[in-house]
Amino acid sequence: MNLILLYPEEVQASGQILSLKDRRFQHIAQIHQPQIGDRLRAGLINGPIGEVEVLALSASEVQLRWHLAAAKPSPDALPLELVMALPRPKMLKRVLQTAATLGVKSLWLIHSYRVDKSYWSTPVLSPDSVHEHLCLGLEQAGDTLLPQVHLRKRFKPFVEDELPALVAGRRALVAHPYQAQDCPAPAWQPSVLVLGPEGGFIPYEIAKLQEAGVESVSLGSRILRVETALPVLLTRLFPLR
Amino acid sequence: MNLILLYPEEVQASGQILSLKDRRFQHIAQIHQPQIGDRLRAGLINGPIGEVEVLALSASEVQLRWHLAAAKPSPDALPLELVMALPRPKMLKRVLQTAATLGVKSLWLIHSYRVDKSYWSTPVLSPDSVHEHLCLGLEQAGDTLLPQVHLRKRFKPFVEDELPALVAGRRALVAHPYQAQDCPAPAWQPSVLVLGPEGGFIPYEIAKLQEAGVESVSLGSRILRVETALPVLLTRLFPLR
Repeated sequence: MNLILLYPEEVQASGQILSLKDRRFQHIAQIHQPQIGDRLRAGLINGPIGEVEVLALSASEVQLRWHLAAAKPSPDALPLELVMALPRPKMLKRVLQTAATLGVKSLWLIHSYRVDKSYWSTPVLSPDSVHEHLCLGLEQAGDTLLPQVHLRKRFKPFVEDELPALVAGRRALVAHPYQAQDCPAPAWQPSVLVLGPEGGFIPYEIAKLQEAGVESVSLGSRILRVETALPVLLTRLFPLR
Repeated sequence: MNLILLYPEEVQASGQILSLKDRRFQHIAQIHQPQIGDRLRAGLINGPIGEVEVLALSASEVQLRWHLAAAKPSPDALPLELVMALPRPKMLKRVLQTAATLGVKSLWLIHSYRVDKSYWSTPVLSPDSVHEHLCLGLEQAGDTLLPQVHLRKRFKPFVEDELPALVAGRRALVAHPYQAQDCPAPAWQPSVLVLGPEGGFIPYEIAKLQEAGVESVSLGSRILRVETALPVLLTRLFPLR
């Protein structure tokens, strides 16, 4: 946790005092182990980054004062619509965290032939769980802007009715080992990236994606797991910021 | 498992028949669900890639015939010495797999001030466990060349006595957010990459690394977990192959 995320309902004004008793308290007490008076980096969800000053620390809570004075901007958001076949639950947790850490702000989780239908009923997809994993990713990166997650349980309506509008005016790519061009050079430009399930999209799905204006790119000779392909592709597509 | 790894003691010659009952059998039966006569990609550890033909499949084992005829080369190995502060055990498993998947062939796990000493006694570091996680990574990538893992429980002797020889003639970089230059452009050249622990190297350690000829590079404004930093950095340093 490189930044402590606070909710707008917890602090409204600089100088305000608040108490934390949840996992943020646990993390501060066990990892930061602060002295009274220490200042830690903190930020408001979807708001500015500042600091909290440690006023008191007990066995069950930490008392903090929020300071907006030293405000710093959040890291740049990726200009990206990320479309992913829903990963299996264990991988989904890490994908949500990694996407948030790397600056993805719009994530579309879609169905695909090789996505097991049972994945859609995992508790990991509950709003509270999605929110928690996104927050863990933001806290890691030092970011405050919460990604939007869109669930689309049917492939065809999404690809036919929604994807063309996302693709319009954007570089749109799907990682696919066959009939693919090389990945383009990194460029900070509006983009759509589509990532398939373990085992890949089936030919029908690739054809539908291409009809919607999405081009296939190769990731090289190694086959990567989704959670590895994600940071690799984002690094290939966008320059360092 | 995009390639079934076989041991040289299991098959010596093309056309040879073998039976598998271990996790490879489980994976073939549950994921591949092959028909009799199907051919699956397979390879010998530290040897060539070919195919296995499915001869028989029961509830407890699969009988295969090894064919070398369709031999393909392994993907290119990264020209890299990867030096990492020992991650905590849960992350270590994923780091071993990811490093193997991405083509790392020489991995040095070292101690550092922020590495908890207890991490060195984890069962994940036992030779069998390390071997298993490396094999999982190779099977994912479709590679057969097993990485070498070197354990160095003392930071100073490693950095003073071994690291300078590794660095000689190689591009040598440590990911460090402070006093750092931008990451160089991707280039397929002999390299040393040093990755710190969660929380980073302490200033003394960075100074020792610099004395050994390792330069600091920045990863941008986001702070990444080790398991995310690894694919990001390898993608920044090496072009796609």
